[in-house]
Amino acid sequence: MSHLSETLHQSRDQVRSQDLGNQSTHTQLMEVMQRLQQTVEDYITQLKTQHLQPDLGLGEQRHSQAAREQEAILVRLMCQVVNLLQPPSPDSSGHVGGGQQAQSSRQPDQLGHHLSDLQATVVSCDLSTRGSDISALYHSSIQGYKTYQGDKYHEDKNPLGFINLGVSENKLCIDLMTERLSRSDMHYIEDALLQYADWRGQPFLREEVARFLAYYCKAPAPLDPENVVVLNGCCSVFSALAMVLCEPGEAFLTPTPFYGGFAFTSHLYSKVELIHVHLDSEVTDTNTCPFQLSVGKLETTLLEARLKGKHVRGLLLINPQNPLGDVYSEDALKEYLEFAKRYNLHVIIDEMYILSVFDESITFHSVLSMETLPDPQRIHVIWGTSKDFGISGFRFGALYTQNKEVASAVSSFGYLHSISGIAQYKLCRLLQDREWIDKVYLPTNRSRLQAAHKYITNNLKALKIPFLNRGSGLYIWINLKKYLDPCTFEQELLLHHRFLENKLLLARGKSYMCTEPGWFRLIFSEKPLCLKSGMHRFFQTLGEQKQDCTEKQQEDALREQTVCLLPSSSSQSHAGESLASASGP
Amino acid sequence: MSHLSETLHQSRDQVRSQDLGNQSTHTQLMEVMQRLQQTVEDYITQLKTQHLQPDLGLGEQRHSQAAREQEAILVRLMCQVVNLLQPPSPDSSGHVGGGQQAQSSRQPDQLGHHLSDLQATVVSCDLSTRGSDISALYHSSIQGYKTYQGDKYHEDKNPLGFINLGVSENKLCIDLMTERLSRSDMHYIEDALLQYADWRGQPFLREEVARFLAYYCKAPAPLDPENVVVLNGCCSVFSALAMVLCEPGEAFLTPTPFYGGFAFTSHLYSKVELIHVHLDSEVTDTNTCPFQLSVGKLETTLLEARLKGKHVRGLLLINPQNPLGDVYSEDALKEYLEFAKRYNLHVIIDEMYILSVFDESITFHSVLSMETLPDPQRIHVIWGTSKDFGISGFRFGALYTQNKEVASAVSSFGYLHSISGIAQYKLCRLLQDREWIDKVYLPTNRSRLQAAHKYITNNLKALKIPFLNRGSGLYIWINLKKYLDPCTFEQELLLHHRFLENKLLLARGKSYMCTEPGWFRLIFSEKPLCLKSGMHRFFQTLGEQKQDCTEKQQEDALREQTVCLLPSSSSQSHAGESLASASGP
Repeated sequence: MSHLSETLHQSRDQVRSQDLGNQSTHTQLMEVMQRLQQTVEDYITQLKTQHLQPDLGLGEQRHSQAAREQEAILVRLMCQVVNLLQPPSPDSSGHVGGGQQAQSSRQPDQLGHHLSDLQATVVSCDLSTRGSDISALYHSSIQGYKTYQGDKYHEDKNPLGFINLGVSENKLCIDLMTERLSRSDMHYIEDALLQYADWRGQPFLREEVARFLAYYCKAPAPLDPENVVVLNGCCSVFSALAMVLCEPGEAFLTPTPFYGGFAFTSHLYSKVELIHVHLDSEVTDTNTCPFQLSVGKLETTLLEARLKGKHVRGLLLINPQNPLGDVYSEDALKEYLEFAKRYNLHVIIDEMYILSVFDESITFHSVLSMETLPDPQRIHVIWGTSKDFGISGFRFGALYTQNKEVASAVSSFGYLHSISGIAQYKLCRLLQDREWIDKVYLPTNRSRLQAAHKYITNNLKALKIPFLNRGSGLYIWINLKKYLDPCTFEQELLLHHRFLENKLLLARGKSYMCTEPGWFRLIFSEKPLCLKSGMHRFFQTLGEQKQDCTEKQQEDALREQTVCLLPSSSSQSHAGESLASASGP
Repeated sequence: MSHLSETLHQSRDQVRSQDLGNQSTHTQLMEVMQRLQQTVEDYITQLKTQHLQPDLGLGEQRHSQAAREQEAILVRLMCQVVNLLQPPSPDSSGHVGGGQQAQSSRQPDQLGHHLSDLQATVVSCDLSTRGSDISALYHSSIQGYKTYQGDKYHEDKNPLGFINLGVSENKLCIDLMTERLSRSDMHYIEDALLQYADWRGQPFLREEVARFLAYYCKAPAPLDPENVVVLNGCCSVFSALAMVLCEPGEAFLTPTPFYGGFAFTSHLYSKVELIHVHLDSEVTDTNTCPFQLSVGKLETTLLEARLKGKHVRGLLLINPQNPLGDVYSEDALKEYLEFAKRYNLHVIIDEMYILSVFDESITFHSVLSMETLPDPQRIHVIWGTSKDFGISGFRFGALYTQNKEVASAVSSFGYLHSISGIAQYKLCRLLQDREWIDKVYLPTNRSRLQAAHKYITNNLKALKIPFLNRGSGLYIWINLKKYLDPCTFEQELLLHHRFLENKLLLARGKSYMCTEPGWFRLIFSEKPLCLKSGMHRFFQTLGEQKQDCTEKQQEDALREQTVCLLPSSSSQSHAGESLASASGP
């Protein structure tokens, strides 16, 4: 019996911890294949003889048990072959919101490590493969955030703590919100709030969400509370949608850069692949603004994906877009929806920032505002209060869909994603209080967002840092590629680390599946003092970085001079050019 | 290209609706195997030539693309082989809390139907297969509960509404709880409660949970808050544990009857199989009490499962047991843990009812109380406030595990299962208030549980309905088989429907994977007036049922007389005997 087939009879733990590095992939592959062929041949022989001798009583039982054992061996052998044959993933150190693609379930998980990884990976004794993968991905992505959680900046109590301009939270109106949530109407308790409830969410909250969305999204007709499902956050809604719309390994199209939380979410449970429609920053005749989305790009990516045998079930859009801040025009939105209809795609549209369009010259168009929708049964809207009301700690996300089957299937997931009754009550009261929202909260929030945005953009302009000047969201998409030398994702990561060393969290473009290194998302919806300190650290970091770049360029130039034994300034002037050209678009 | 490999290029819907029944499994297997061998051989040739010609530039690129395509084909072929080899599942029509077994992921979902199923399945246009399955299972299971949610009994406002003695909730101390939760200390709000937090749960709550469990479980040493993960409910904790401990299709052993929520949970996301250790009610020399669990039964089931090629990763226990109410003795518990250690099994132990042991003569032993644990790294405790504090609407569940790796991996799932910050704060305050818990809540709760239990059991005794007289939990496991004629699960379901017609919800034994028809779980932790009305409806339903049984028996007897043309009462006396014998154990 070969070395590898012996391992089949060892426990998984033994296999996992074993060093397979001494054998070449090819030798191992050949051994497994020989055993595979032998097992399959034996099995087929067995099937044949079983067919010829149908009624053997006890003998037959043993026979079928033996067959089952061989099936088990066969399955495991195949898992190994698949593992051995699979090329290493191009981005095995993905991040939450990093470029990871959900693993297809077609690829068996049981020994789901690539061989090359097997040599390097210290594998857990206790965790499943999927558990190890998820845990590794999560913890590698969340390190900066964890450090921040343990040492948060506070203007009085901890002015040297971490400042978080990386996670999209609106902290500008937390004073108003605290006051509103402290009023006596919020403290109401009744039996039903303390007990199990409708897994779709409490009826009173679903009714209020329907009214609220109809009003603020300017729906042409009342929205139906039966079309609302309330879960504990928008990623939970997305997780449930991905489960009920896709088989594992099926896919959604999504334009990049885009919100990385969906990528991490699909990795946790649903194993749905997100196929990226890569947008780029360069402005050309057809690309009239940076990162412009077009039906042509959607179509090309879809057809390429289909050619590769991918089963694309839907299109995932974010409007207002995160991290770009783009607000789709009504015409553009219609085109995307019509494209989806043409190809029988569902559209999941995340409208988390509908009340965070702070530039009054911009009109936001919700899909819920449209008189007619191209394919209303396949359009599913996600909204929540985390961003627009700055209360991400409430864990509230809502689905609105006219598709009863989808709403109904998603509600099954309420079993694992429901919200505290008391939080549902408070949310309902909050959404109900239009007087306060319209006269107090929204105007204040808008003017504070405007002021904070202006403060940051003025600073960015002063430093000649290119950015997308949009009027929505809580973030600015900025281009720091002139601080990267060379302009690679490795350097982007190093700059990200340098920000962290200066106790500043920013989110880097790679986490949004951006294909061009050097982009960062900077949150501006932070209290003024904190924002000011944050910008101080930001400029300090960039100063250090620039100093390093210059020193490096000088060293390179010196080295070149030494090597060539000729005086020349070509290297330096090239570097100068690249810095200059980086200040557009 | 063979028939089956052609189907690879068809859409899923085409594959779904296609009749593959004309080909024998054996022919298909042979075709796929031939193609598999060819592909693997081609692939190996390619690997060899690639190895020999390492630097071919563009040629190499094409080469590696071709290799990747072949790998993709190979993976799909293998998936097909695995599908063809897998025997059809014995129980494909599972219920929430019914006997469904999770599908193995080794069996790819894309062609995830067995051939025989393919012919029969009617598929939704919009939902994925898994979405349809989950939705169907959920809605078939929840119908009675949905009707109850829409028309709840209230002693003043809706005395004719549905009474729910089916869902395990403690409503006896909701007055105390409402008063406690309304006190001013509960209304505190700070920024951190409204923002994203540690996904493991707020540090202050994890600290309090550790202190609370150490105190009430009588831990020999302080418990570490770093070992606590807080999620939105115990089923969420179980879902995360199942993900990180098992590959899809791997299994946990669990003694039945047991809480059906875990079965439904594993069906939603983790696709972990629950292998039932069937306990029975008959008392014998070895089975000294009804539904007795023993290491022998665990071991037999484990070995049988292994023979069938199942990969059993753990043992799932509930203590105090739900629905039986059994409290494991310290010795028994140790034996189960030692059994688990012997077979390298994780133990997930659900201790949801630790403070609901209302019979003061019973001592509850938490695994957290043990001086030494057989395999501490593989013991994972679940606890929450839903039952012990009657606040299931809070959606709070906690994991305690010494295994840092497991705690860490489970915390990744906080991303989709976290609780509102304000609810976390209130929970912390509640658990902190030992004075109130020990002097007000627990004594009152205990005496009310005792009174309600006594009221119900006296009623049951009067009607000579056998039941398990236990001193823990919120439920009584009762035997209504004397009201079933014949004693089948169909009749059990019909009786369940009859209760519903009388606006009474009970939970039937089948939902707990009980193998003997006729058992029901009756919740007694309901307010006195409601309980009284509930029992009235209970007796009324049983009266109707008995009347029907009698009439049916008389008709049968009459028919027999007519057929035989002979006067005889044998049928009647037989039915009488079966009613009498049903009053034990």
